[in-house]
Amino acid sequence: MTGEQLEATIERVTRRLRADVGRDWCPCHALPRGRCPGTEQTAGGQSIEAPTAAGLARLIDHTLLRPEAARPDIVRLCQEGLAFAFATVCVNPWWVPEAAARLAGSPVGVCAVVGFPLGALPPALKRQEAAAVLGDGASEVDMVVNLGAVKSGEWPVVCAEIEAVVAEAARHGALVKVILETALLGLEEKIAVALVARGAGASFVKTSTGFGPGGATVDDVRLLRRVVGSAMGVKASGGIRDASHAAALLDAGATRLGTSAGMVIVREWEVAQGRSQ
Amino acid sequence: MTGEQLEATIERVTRRLRADVGRDWCPCHALPRGRCPGTEQTAGGQSIEAPTAAGLARLIDHTLLRPEAARPDIVRLCQEGLAFAFATVCVNPWWVPEAAARLAGSPVGVCAVVGFPLGALPPALKRQEAAAVLGDGASEVDMVVNLGAVKSGEWPVVCAEIEAVVAEAARHGALVKVILETALLGLEEKIAVALVARGAGASFVKTSTGFGPGGATVDDVRLLRRVVGSAMGVKASGGIRDASHAAALLDAGATRLGTSAGMVIVREWEVAQGRSQ
Repeated sequence: MTGEQLEATIERVTRRLRADVGRDWCPCHALPRGRCPGTEQTAGGQSIEAPTAAGLARLIDHTLLRPEAARPDIVRLCQEGLAFAFATVCVNPWWVPEAAARLAGSPVGVCAVVGFPLGALPPALKRQEAAAVLGDGASEVDMVVNLGAVKSGEWPVVCAEIEAVVAEAARHGALVKVILETALLGLEEKIAVALVARGAGASFVKTSTGFGPGGATVDDVRLLRRVVGSAMGVKASGGIRDASHAAALLDAGATRLGTSAGMVIVREWEVAQGRSQ
Repeated sequence: MTGEQLEATIERVTRRLRADVGRDWCPCHALPRGRCPGTEQTAGGQSIEAPTAAGLARLIDHTLLRPEAARPDIVRLCQEGLAFAFATVCVNPWWVPEAAARLAGSPVGVCAVVGFPLGALPPALKRQEAAAVLGDGASEVDMVVNLGAVKSGEWPVVCAEIEAVVAEAARHGALVKVILETALLGLEEKIAVALVARGAGASFVKTSTGFGPGGATVDDVRLLRRVVGSAMGVKASGGIRDASHAAALLDAGATRLGTSAGMVIVREWEVAQGRSQ
């Protein structure tokens, strides 16, 4: 697809959404930015300086979402989060109080997933879940979009659920990332969800849950960055295992990486930077 | 493992649980049975008559939990549920109102999953989710146990979350199935969760989400049936694709099957019964 064809597709999806959701929706309003360490640092697709290893760590959500993770695993995750000064540790709702207690007063945030990983909850339940994790100390909420509503073209629902979670997060000064599960979406669906997420006031779009049929791709990150522009974050997640993949995703416009391999990636990054000096 | 060794293991786990959770817990009290068509029909491990194809259908939860399922898919699922007179259709929370509207007044129930598929929510959120799906018309709730709490030996939490959902379901005359995700648990953990589920008043234990690393096995069904006795249901789920597997699971003590292949299984069953007459 040429750049022109992509522009035309984005324009077409934007018009259709405006008709579906109503004229008052989708103003490109000021976004709640909270304390996101990543958003400012790369605009994507531009030639920017590669971050230092410490700078890279500040772009990583150190993630443990396996359902069988036990409390000692979460404790270790938090210790690693502090040692590497990652952006956040990313955990399931049940573990938010433990993580928040261990990271209190540190620069490492607590990222909680909501509606995860299937996204098939009504907006009110997503809002309740967000309220609970925010009350428990989460500083960032990664919500899975209602994929069934997306596939059914029910855009007002998608808009409503994101706005509901954003409203809850705003009360806590927290930010919201909207997970698309890109491997399950077609091009126009990806564009539409990204536009709705932007219009509904989310701070980031995010590629994948890590539980779906595919993870972050360079092409998807580039697409999302193109759609949301420079004022929003793009989080790449799912299957990020090494520094070269991380570098490619950042180069494509990612401003945050979700991975359970953050320690390996940061160490590889250090080695690679040592070599290039 | 011999039968005697298994008995000794069950006894040991029971004692440990009693110490962990407190003496007042785990009475083998009368269970809320609701309108479960399956519980009475097979006790498992006994020589019983094979059900007719129609009887088999009444043991099946006709299931569609893929996150990308769209509204027309759910409508079709309900039509199939009615045509085959399955026990229930089993859907994600977002689709409960649609399914309840389409199945109202029929013998086909609506089964909603809660805390699905990771189970890593605090008890209060599971209760809220259960309340929402019950209010929307679910007649059965399949909740995923908090696997992280199980792995951490935090049995009072596991007991509390099941009791919370059971209490909510009781107000609606609905029944609760507790999903163990057996592929992630060791023998003693499976025994312990089944005992806690029984003690907390659940109506069924259920093997798998279908999203984990493994599905229903004959051995797990036999174990669960042995642990919970004959007064509770055992639902086998995950990877059930044909009539011979279904027959083996029923023979091992399953009283409900969760599958997306229910129509194929019932037709195979009809053919097999035609041959044997």
